[in-house]
Amino acid sequence: MAGNTTGNLFRVTTFGSSHGTALGAVVDGCPAGLNLSREDIQAELNRRRPGTSKITTSRGETDQVEILSGIFEGKTDGTPIAAVVYNKDADSSAYEPFRDKPRPGHGDYTWTAKYGCYDYRGGGRGSGRTTIGHVIGGAVAKKLIAQLDIKVVSHVTQVGDVKAKHVAYGHIEEYASKNAVRCADQKAAKLMEEKILKTKEKGDSVGGVVETIAFGVPAGIGEPVFDKLDADLARALMGIGSVKGVEIGFGFKLAEATASATNDEYYLEKDKIKTTTNTSGGIVGGISNGMPIVARIAVKPTPSISTVQKTVDLKTMEETEIEIKGRHDPCICPRVTPVAEAAVSMVLVDHLLRSGFINSRRI
Amino acid sequence: MAGNTTGNLFRVTTFGSSHGTALGAVVDGCPAGLNLSREDIQAELNRRRPGTSKITTSRGETDQVEILSGIFEGKTDGTPIAAVVYNKDADSSAYEPFRDKPRPGHGDYTWTAKYGCYDYRGGGRGSGRTTIGHVIGGAVAKKLIAQLDIKVVSHVTQVGDVKAKHVAYGHIEEYASKNAVRCADQKAAKLMEEKILKTKEKGDSVGGVVETIAFGVPAGIGEPVFDKLDADLARALMGIGSVKGVEIGFGFKLAEATASATNDEYYLEKDKIKTTTNTSGGIVGGISNGMPIVARIAVKPTPSISTVQKTVDLKTMEETEIEIKGRHDPCICPRVTPVAEAAVSMVLVDHLLRSGFINSRRI
Amino acid sequence: MAGNTTGNLFRVTTFGSSHGTALGAVVDGCPAGLNLSREDIQAELNRRRPGTSKITTSRGETDQVEILSGIFEGKTDGTPIAAVVYNKDADSSAYEPFRDKPRPGHGDYTWTAKYGCYDYRGGGRGSGRTTIGHVIGGAVAKKLIAQLDIKVVSHVTQVGDVKAKHVAYGHIEEYASKNAVRCADQKAAKLMEEKILKTKEKGDSVGGVVETIAFGVPAGIGEPVFDKLDADLARALMGIGSVKGVEIGFGFKLAEATASATNDEYYLEKDKIKTTTNTSGGIVGGISNGMPIVARIAVKPTPSISTVQKTVDLKTMEETEIEIKGRHDPCICPRVTPVAEAAVSMVLVDHLLRSGFINSRRI
Amino acid sequence: MAGNTTGNLFRVTTFGSSHGTALGAVVDGCPAGLNLSREDIQAELNRRRPGTSKITTSRGETDQVEILSGIFEGKTDGTPIAAVVYNKDADSSAYEPFRDKPRPGHGDYTWTAKYGCYDYRGGGRGSGRTTIGHVIGGAVAKKLIAQLDIKVVSHVTQVGDVKAKHVAYGHIEEYASKNAVRCADQKAAKLMEEKILKTKEKGDSVGGVVETIAFGVPAGIGEPVFDKLDADLARALMGIGSVKGVEIGFGFKLAEATASATNDEYYLEKDKIKTTTNTSGGIVGGISNGMPIVARIAVKPTPSISTVQKTVDLKTMEETEIEIKGRHDPCICPRVTPVAEAAVSMVLVDHLLRSGFINSRRI
Repeated sequence: MAGNTTGNLFRVTTFGSSHGTALGAVVDGCPAGLNLSREDIQAELNRRRPGTSKITTSRGETDQVEILSGIFEGKTDGTPIAAVVYNKDADSSAYEPFRDKPRPGHGDYTWTAKYGCYDYRGGGRGSGRTTIGHVIGGAVAKKLIAQLDIKVVSHVTQVGDVKAKHVAYGHIEEYASKNAVRCADQKAAKLMEEKILKTKEKGDSVGGVVETIAFGVPAGIGEPVFDKLDADLARALMGIGSVKGVEIGFGFKLAEATASATNDEYYLEKDKIKTTTNTSGGIVGGISNGMPIVARIAVKPTPSISTVQKTVDLKTMEETEIEIKGRHDPCICPRVTPVAEAAVSMVLVDHLLRSGFINSRRI
Repeated sequence: MAGNTTGNLFRVTTFGSSHGTALGAVVDGCPAGLNLSREDIQAELNRRRPGTSKITTSRGETDQVEILSGIFEGKTDGTPIAAVVYNKDADSSAYEPFRDKPRPGHGDYTWTAKYGCYDYRGGGRGSGRTTIGHVIGGAVAKKLIAQLDIKVVSHVTQVGDVKAKHVAYGHIEEYASKNAVRCADQKAAKLMEEKILKTKEKGDSVGGVVETIAFGVPAGIGEPVFDKLDADLARALMGIGSVKGVEIGFGFKLAEATASATNDEYYLEKDKIKTTTNTSGGIVGGISNGMPIVARIAVKPTPSISTVQKTVDLKTMEETEIEIKGRHDPCICPRVTPVAEAAVSMVLVDHLLRSGFINSRRI
Repeated sequence: MAGNTTGNLFRVTTFGSSHGTALGAVVDGCPAGLNLSREDIQAELNRRRPGTSKITTSRGETDQVEILSGIFEGKTDGTPIAAVVYNKDADSSAYEPFRDKPRPGHGDYTWTAKYGCYDYRGGGRGSGRTTIGHVIGGAVAKKLIAQLDIKVVSHVTQVGDVKAKHVAYGHIEEYASKNAVRCADQKAAKLMEEKILKTKEKGDSVGGVVETIAFGVPAGIGEPVFDKLDADLARALMGIGSVKGVEIGFGFKLAEATASATNDEYYLEKDKIKTTTNTSGGIVGGISNGMPIVARIAVKPTPSISTVQKTVDLKTMEETEIEIKGRHDPCICPRVTPVAEAAVSMVLVDHLLRSGFINSRRI
Repeated sequence: MAGNTTGNLFRVTTFGSSHGTALGAVVDGCPAGLNLSREDIQAELNRRRPGTSKITTSRGETDQVEILSGIFEGKTDGTPIAAVVYNKDADSSAYEPFRDKPRPGHGDYTWTAKYGCYDYRGGGRGSGRTTIGHVIGGAVAKKLIAQLDIKVVSHVTQVGDVKAKHVAYGHIEEYASKNAVRCADQKAAKLMEEKILKTKEKGDSVGGVVETIAFGVPAGIGEPVFDKLDADLARALMGIGSVKGVEIGFGFKLAEATASATNDEYYLEKDKIKTTTNTSGGIVGGISNGMPIVARIAVKPTPSISTVQKTVDLKTMEETEIEIKGRHDPCICPRVTPVAEAAVSMVLVDHLLRSGFINSRRI
């Protein structure tokens, strides 16, 4: 049973691989009546695409999107929105040496173990390029939640051992957009950039942490006991390539805490119920409480590095070594930010539809 | 759209609340031909039930399970297995004061925000008692994966600031079963127990970390790009009450690492492909690689504490205070262990069925 | 992948077999705030249960239902509603001869071919008794759609070659309730009853047609292109045991017709758009048009008959003969009526939720 | 909740409308290792496309398909197969008069009632042209089931009052391919063609019946109690535009029958269990029994006719009249045959995967 469709009421199906003909997505379940243009989707893809700074891969994809269906007279009409991006700058020759020699840290071996074959060119569908589909779905989702004044923002809070200082929520988006690392703490951003460039020089790569915050989510979305909002966010975020950990609110810090210090107490701000602290990250009992939703993900260092690595030749079944060349990201965190926003936005739309905050037929 | 069914091919639907008539589960998708008895399920429920040591709540439930369907002549027959546990020791009077006053850290407020009402008695369906359903589903799942020599083990690795030392994988189950905390490091177990009892005396509670390891999972399960094995594990684990973080393999440590130090290289052990290290926790590209699968969860301190807490009266919409009395767990981690095992086992069965490692009709 | 859950937003999971411990259903996705009592469900089960007239089987089940969860202070609270009926009058001895000799027309052989085993007692889960689960789900669905003044009525329009005359829609429910056959045309009802009794005397059984009409369904439900309202109705109705055909509106008569004679033209009745005729049965392009929804099902003769029948002994793999004794329905159509109403009501609720006509959180 | 994805393990998502940019499908869940080329899909689309004879519409679409993903070195690689057909010969001007005036028998009104808007050009996504997506999915499904020697054949058995005589199963495909009507009875085919041409001359259209037979399906597929094989076939077939009735086996004839005459008795043919008759159409208790699966659908006359018809202006909310011009099919049955084959093939693959007859990872 394949797993290329996500969501229950807002369903996104993605397709395509790194060096195939095209990548894209079909977005089903978007209510009719939403203003949506090619540019809305292109803008998000531009934030994800490679080659925009010296700390990303130099693969020269412009990632121009074409909408095939679902828009009538400038608005969604309730039918599925299909969008496609053709691959233009694929260079498969660099991957020929890895045809039967799985690269450590990549899905080459596990995909082969499963399917008995593997499109080794550029990581095939295991490539980060498949997140083009996520971002298409997320672009539609973002337009929808904007109708309810919900905004989702991601920024980089850690690269290697460099950790950003806390920045007031209201400034994160603006500040993070000012540097290539997409870190809201400008001092840390500079150190992160240095770290990334030094790592790149060594032919190595480094991990980091990306935080995503959703502002304006109403209290009351999430479906216990299995489709809790935090459970679905964890699934969506852990499913992004290279992510190895997910925290909601204070996350692992709560393992060390006592309830007397971390139970978020209720108070009234005018007629609205709020919590004095937000250790829960806006979700209690699997349902949103109206406070900002906060999620952090651990991103592993991108596995494509230029040092010699040990592997096994799957054809001869002998141990061997490989050396990866090509154009790779020394730290994928900055480019993960729009993908994390997309993942969170899609989950939110799905739950807003499920809970009836957005009408499924038309807005 | 409600969320009380989980799984795609192995589908578990749970029902019931803390102080209602009964709790239970319907397990659909178990192949025919599996030896399954009431005792198989009861044994797992016994590991979850309260009142088994001085560090758990004293609510005196024996949690006796009855199987209503799905077993024919001692074996599963391919039809749904329904199992039910009647509540016997519910004391609802203690909860009367919280009827309109949501307890901080609990789902009382968010559930009310959603449904417009709330079964305030014992936490209603937001109670940890609903994990009886998880454990029923997990008991069937465990029997199934045992056919493939897969074993899932959970243990407590942290309580507050007390962290357990690493214990060789082969000993974890045995060692963890020797103490009430279910920590495989006996020295740490003692310190954890002291910590829990001290916290209990203060009327407070403390968080911790539970690690789950799955041994014997074949390479090749997991369904990219949305139903990756790690994504589904993250969803299942984050969905357990009180869990606020999930890590796979080295998790958040990878944020600080470089790929040259953490890429798990391949080698041959006889004819089997293995990795020299297991920073990935047995999952690469969303698919299992045949190494042990390792997941850790951050468990927040149980929110029921006896100190005075601020809240809002939902009827009068005025700020007020509450004091929670009753029988509560000062640290829920030990009792989370069988639930985490159940959650992981259900995900594994679902993916083993999806990938054809288990035949869906009959074993 | 098992198939004991139906519905997308209104999800009903059923369990249990003819001679097992119990049968029942878990209804997930019912909004909070609906008045619902045990009696609401019992009333529907009473219409389905056997032994209520001389034209049904004499198995003496009272089919008393118990609600295990989902009701708080007399109303649904948004959590799953589990309901159970214990088997009381099972007589398995009569089925011993068929242990390895599949009865023609029954699922005995096909279920064994699939699962490798079969609960031969009373048809196991292939028994019509499993529709207890349908009726439980339908009872909740009926209460929900009644909030929107939607009513679903089934009646028998044919038994063998006896066909009922058309009866004005407004009278069907009342008239059909006046006789054991549940046929609104009293003259035909008498002939049908005679036919059934004569067939019973011969140890034979006879088929028939059941028509279901849904009044008051708003225009705008149904989800093209795969989850059309008529498609989902066809699935739900064809899934009832013994059903071999489904028609919407004029059905197979339209195969002989021309569009000029059968296109339902539009006109205005006050401010409401209606059609001059209703050959479409209230559904056009897969979406309801506001006219009464009309579906008819072909019900085959119940396969349990007392004549000698040829079959194969699955153990010895030799041809053999069997003779079925016991208590059976000579015509199942009357007892199918509440099941057809349940099936249609569940589909309607699911689509009303999907289209936002009913809020998924609370009514 | 939108409904443009069908299937559980073999999941087909379709998109596109009659006069939009393109139509297509994403096929997810096809195992790796299947030889699949653009030509395999094109061949099926050619059988569906318009303009191939004088009894079909003259719209001049060549319906050339492009595969965007999912094929690696000539074989499926387990990733989603996206395929697209660009619209070339759309003439939207003819539809301008119907912008706010719904055509009787079409989905114009019901879609507007639902979504608040409607792509009136060529029927939008309510057009029969959306079955391009079905046929793409069906083409992949057919290649898969061919691996198990399963073959699905559709033919026209009735047009208006002209009914075909029974033709031996082994000859149906060959004979039906010899005439434009796709009727295996050559005499009837001639009469049908005359009937269609006469109807066309009058600017009218006529309905018919299409029968689909699946040969070689193993005993044991289908998932009671809700996902029975016949239930899923009924859903898939009823969901095809213009279909108003579905029968399995003897269908509505069984309503008039007695069990003694229609119970299919078992016998042995060598070591294989067969039934003496096949009134059940190869499905008993919701599961296949190894005999040919037989389904018939009632197809209504295509609603686009050139006579003046009454309707309502949705803008002014006044009664009005319309006259439809353009290029339409006087009888859609011949072009429904490949669509019915596709629908049945997709259901079969899904159930073969669900029951483990096809491995989900690779063939």
